[in-house]
Amino acid sequence: MEEIAAGPLLSLIDTPEDLRKLNKMQLQQVCNELRQFIIDCVSVHGGHFGASLGVVELSVALHYIYNTPDDQLVWDVGHQAYGHKILTGRRKVFHTNRKYGGLSGFPKRSESIYDTFGVGHSSTSISAALGMAIASKYKGENDRRHIAVIGDGAMTAGLPFEALNHAGVSGANLLVILNDNNMSIDPNVGALKEYLTDITTSHSYNKFRDDVWKMLGMLPTKDFQKLASKVEAGLKGVLSKSSNLFEALGFRYFGPVDGHNIIKLTETLKSLKDIPGPKILHIKTVKGKGYDLAEKDQTLWHAPGTFDKITGKINKKIITVPEPPKYQDVFGHTILELAQKNPAIMGITPAMPSGCSLKIMMDAMPDRAIDVGIAEQHAVTLSAGLATQGIRVFCNIYSSFMQRAYDMVIHDVAIQKLPVVFCLDRAGLVGDDGPTHHGAYDIAFMRCIPNLVVSAPMNEAELRNLMYTAQLDETKVPFVIRYPRGQGVMPEWRTPMQKIEIGTGRKICDGQEIAILTIGHPGNFAVAACKELAMEDIYPAHYDLRFVKPLDEAMMHEIAQRYNKIITVEDGTVVGGMGSAVLEFLSQHDYAPEVKMLGIPDSLVEHGKPEELHRECGYDARGIAEAVRELTGVKEMAL
Amino acid sequence: MEEIAAGPLLSLIDTPEDLRKLNKMQLQQVCNELRQFIIDCVSVHGGHFGASLGVVELSVALHYIYNTPDDQLVWDVGHQAYGHKILTGRRKVFHTNRKYGGLSGFPKRSESIYDTFGVGHSSTSISAALGMAIASKYKGENDRRHIAVIGDGAMTAGLPFEALNHAGVSGANLLVILNDNNMSIDPNVGALKEYLTDITTSHSYNKFRDDVWKMLGMLPTKDFQKLASKVEAGLKGVLSKSSNLFEALGFRYFGPVDGHNIIKLTETLKSLKDIPGPKILHIKTVKGKGYDLAEKDQTLWHAPGTFDKITGKINKKIITVPEPPKYQDVFGHTILELAQKNPAIMGITPAMPSGCSLKIMMDAMPDRAIDVGIAEQHAVTLSAGLATQGIRVFCNIYSSFMQRAYDMVIHDVAIQKLPVVFCLDRAGLVGDDGPTHHGAYDIAFMRCIPNLVVSAPMNEAELRNLMYTAQLDETKVPFVIRYPRGQGVMPEWRTPMQKIEIGTGRKICDGQEIAILTIGHPGNFAVAACKELAMEDIYPAHYDLRFVKPLDEAMMHEIAQRYNKIITVEDGTVVGGMGSAVLEFLSQHDYAPEVKMLGIPDSLVEHGKPEELHRECGYDARGIAEAVRELTGVKEMAL
Repeated sequence: MEEIAAGPLLSLIDTPEDLRKLNKMQLQQVCNELRQFIIDCVSVHGGHFGASLGVVELSVALHYIYNTPDDQLVWDVGHQAYGHKILTGRRKVFHTNRKYGGLSGFPKRSESIYDTFGVGHSSTSISAALGMAIASKYKGENDRRHIAVIGDGAMTAGLPFEALNHAGVSGANLLVILNDNNMSIDPNVGALKEYLTDITTSHSYNKFRDDVWKMLGMLPTKDFQKLASKVEAGLKGVLSKSSNLFEALGFRYFGPVDGHNIIKLTETLKSLKDIPGPKILHIKTVKGKGYDLAEKDQTLWHAPGTFDKITGKINKKIITVPEPPKYQDVFGHTILELAQKNPAIMGITPAMPSGCSLKIMMDAMPDRAIDVGIAEQHAVTLSAGLATQGIRVFCNIYSSFMQRAYDMVIHDVAIQKLPVVFCLDRAGLVGDDGPTHHGAYDIAFMRCIPNLVVSAPMNEAELRNLMYTAQLDETKVPFVIRYPRGQGVMPEWRTPMQKIEIGTGRKICDGQEIAILTIGHPGNFAVAACKELAMEDIYPAHYDLRFVKPLDEAMMHEIAQRYNKIITVEDGTVVGGMGSAVLEFLSQHDYAPEVKMLGIPDSLVEHGKPEELHRECGYDARGIAEAVRELTGVKEMAL
Repeated sequence: MEEIAAGPLLSLIDTPEDLRKLNKMQLQQVCNELRQFIIDCVSVHGGHFGASLGVVELSVALHYIYNTPDDQLVWDVGHQAYGHKILTGRRKVFHTNRKYGGLSGFPKRSESIYDTFGVGHSSTSISAALGMAIASKYKGENDRRHIAVIGDGAMTAGLPFEALNHAGVSGANLLVILNDNNMSIDPNVGALKEYLTDITTSHSYNKFRDDVWKMLGMLPTKDFQKLASKVEAGLKGVLSKSSNLFEALGFRYFGPVDGHNIIKLTETLKSLKDIPGPKILHIKTVKGKGYDLAEKDQTLWHAPGTFDKITGKINKKIITVPEPPKYQDVFGHTILELAQKNPAIMGITPAMPSGCSLKIMMDAMPDRAIDVGIAEQHAVTLSAGLATQGIRVFCNIYSSFMQRAYDMVIHDVAIQKLPVVFCLDRAGLVGDDGPTHHGAYDIAFMRCIPNLVVSAPMNEAELRNLMYTAQLDETKVPFVIRYPRGQGVMPEWRTPMQKIEIGTGRKICDGQEIAILTIGHPGNFAVAACKELAMEDIYPAHYDLRFVKPLDEAMMHEIAQRYNKIITVEDGTVVGGMGSAVLEFLSQHDYAPEVKMLGIPDSLVEHGKPEELHRECGYDARGIAEAVRELTGVKEMAL
């Protein structure tokens, strides 16, 4: 991998100090070079694209005007922080972005003092920056500024509202920059988005205010003096405090400002620097700005993979034989297929219609599949509300984002035994996005909840069967189906669907002495391991548990009676996960086999390709084979 | 227990149908009798008080105007639903409220068809009611209405904002009633509260709008025609869409209305019935309305226990010998004591200053202890932000409410290894509040997170030592301390504080054959069990693990080598909890003792006194003794 060449001005910028030495008239060129650098790099190495192009000017302006890192800048989500990274000492290693052992795709405290707060999940920036601002206030650091940059998509989550509600009365010196580009990964949704469009367009708040002031100035005061002064007082009160959503919450609102006008931006930021208290600056930007195709199809170009930067042709793997589909697409096509037969089915996604493929159903049945925005809590409680009315909801949430709606799963769904189906996408190690996005904990945090069924399919047919089972009339229970990001194993995946008895696993193969117990997709790693071991005349048995909860007790008794060595394999944490469920069963029934648990260890797994990470964690085919050899007493072979 | 006598009109009301037969002029009397019934009942049987008194008129008006249960009414939190319960067929059993086997203190679907959605935790009602409304729309049930009643305190959480953002563009027929009484359990905080006060008082939105219309009407149109029409258009646009926070989010706003004027309320609700789309009705009420003392000290009278309804004297246990303090008060006094010595300490509570006793520090150090409102997510991410600046935050959240901030613990604290101290109050079975409030899952959902220390004190001195340890300079790790609601065991609790090595347990007593391993307060149940067993010449060993994570490995090896039978005891779920951590250790090190796990079973535990519930779950002293006898082969004795 090679360093990417930078333009003449950008080459001089190793820290924001260097940037601040330039004169204002050079900033446009810095922006141009920075934008080109991002295009050059992402086109070759992949990564998030549109978001960072959209904030090139903002990134330059912020580091130019503010005294970073002493002034503290918190980027929400972090998809958009490439420019920030490149300007803060990481230009020369930026080609390692998202690679195993390389830079993180997100701001990360351990990577740079300019990364004040680690992100990945959206909507945390205002709370974090407010914490920093309150600490500065308490410590008497009166010159320090604290800035949160948050998108209009991230603003649809509840957390920023909680933070605004607190910040608005805190008196803290906090600047929130609302980067309004009308997008999450998919187009942004909801009333707030409409509102932001409203105040940006014809009935502009500022324009209205100007008009009213003008009118009041033109009144013949002798006739209307008393009334006018009364109205003026009322108007001032209402306009300054209530007529803008953010001012209603105690913020001073500024904007909207064109986020691609570097001169205007730097001037605005400079003038805001010394205004005390909580402020919001509303800027308008275009996701993908400066790369025509990315501006036009913003969802596709959110993270397009590598591409030819001249033609804009996205590089795709050349497929010569039929390939297995992504689990995501199996979900998307299957829910539509089920919904065509069962009118009670609806689908819910919090802002991931493309990512989870619910979009397939949204396009075909717009009234039955809903994107609620980045709002996992609402997605779950809404699903519970729908379920009380007999709707069979498939609520699709990425595993690590489900951590946001944990209480709603317990309090609104499980306690009431409402039959919501949770499809946990991106379960297990997700790869390039790293520790914030790994779906490492869901088995542990879900299986401790009463009344839930917790399952994971080993392949596409099993995913279809589990989805089919979950929506049957006789299956009215909360039902979790977890599956990983990416491809399954069955090119011919459109299998006829059939019911699976809840709490039944399946035997993949008989064996001798050792039984491998797997859950979900890693079952395929065990199949590969068994093939490898057969060549050495080692024949472990292999069982696919299919359900972590309830466990297949009959099968577990069979296993415990027939095998005195057990290996458990899961793409989740080994602390409290499926392996622990197996231990609980064995202990409860007084079995004492030797048990070896493979899975995600009790430490953070960084980013990298899934294969690299599975290897690192030791639950890929090779790791499973090694564990079997170890248990059989066969010394590890040189490989 | 005896049924409470009702007044002459209330006695006739067994269902809302009966209420709807009355004429409007009788409603005030119904309200008076309902209020008296609540006073009569709560003064004798205890329970939540102020909230239900505050919505007597609203409860009567809603059931009078709407066709419940076909029209669907969702009460947020549910503290305020006593009137609703009494009017919907539960008057004659209302004296069993919150008693073991009796009515739940909250709306509960399995209890009544009028309880459309189970609650307990705040802020879920808008999402749930929106789900119902969307289902009705989809099913073509055009006559059905859906109403969410939510307090201004509950509105400070993020979830209602997520729901408003969706509802505002959903076109669903949803009425949100904002019950504005300026209170959570403690006084409400935040910018929204200030805003609601603003629009209610002098610069009233409605008043302002009226004034402006009036002024426009008075303009000499010949001179100002063009400008005035321009302004009028702008004004209409802004006033109808943007000048009110709720209208900015796509709701039609009505109010504020006096929530204690039954005639006005019924008229308003009637006129809103046929207005389509999302609407918000802002009513002003007084918590504790109609009981003078409760109106004056609203926090004390939120749930005062039993009292003399004539004198207002709250019944207190007569204390003859010094009693152990509540763990809550030990926390409150200890954080203040620590903060007096360590200027880096701050305290954060999401709306529970009285409940968790952070109020002690808030009163003494108002700039260092913050109530952020009902906003658990923000509380945790704010704490993380503070921690980046060297602040040593004690973030106190009830165990079951921590479920709301789970992602923030993982994503913002644990992944970044920020040294936030989480004090999980109300861990274990909380008693009267029942399954929504039991802190049953925290050990399981916390111990699977990397980088966390998870601990629980067995008594007051241990709580103080853990708090002391957590804030030391050498302890810069995320640190969880969980403890139950209620009294500890040490009347003389102000012990000198000392450091506990992280990951060390302690031996309570040696023994023979069997070792009892406990975590936290139930260690005291084991002590009692050992005393009982000693009289039968049975001597189990007893170890207090103190840390679930990391486990005391040296001690665990000692235990596993010396004892071949182990009983684990915890006030948390046995699925993935401390017992599972012990099993994981034993398996990993090839020990195979017989293990019996006591704790909260994998099913919902209903409400009742903690002693009743500990008995039911079998981990009280008697249960532990029984388990020991069983393992020793001694037949259970008649008790």
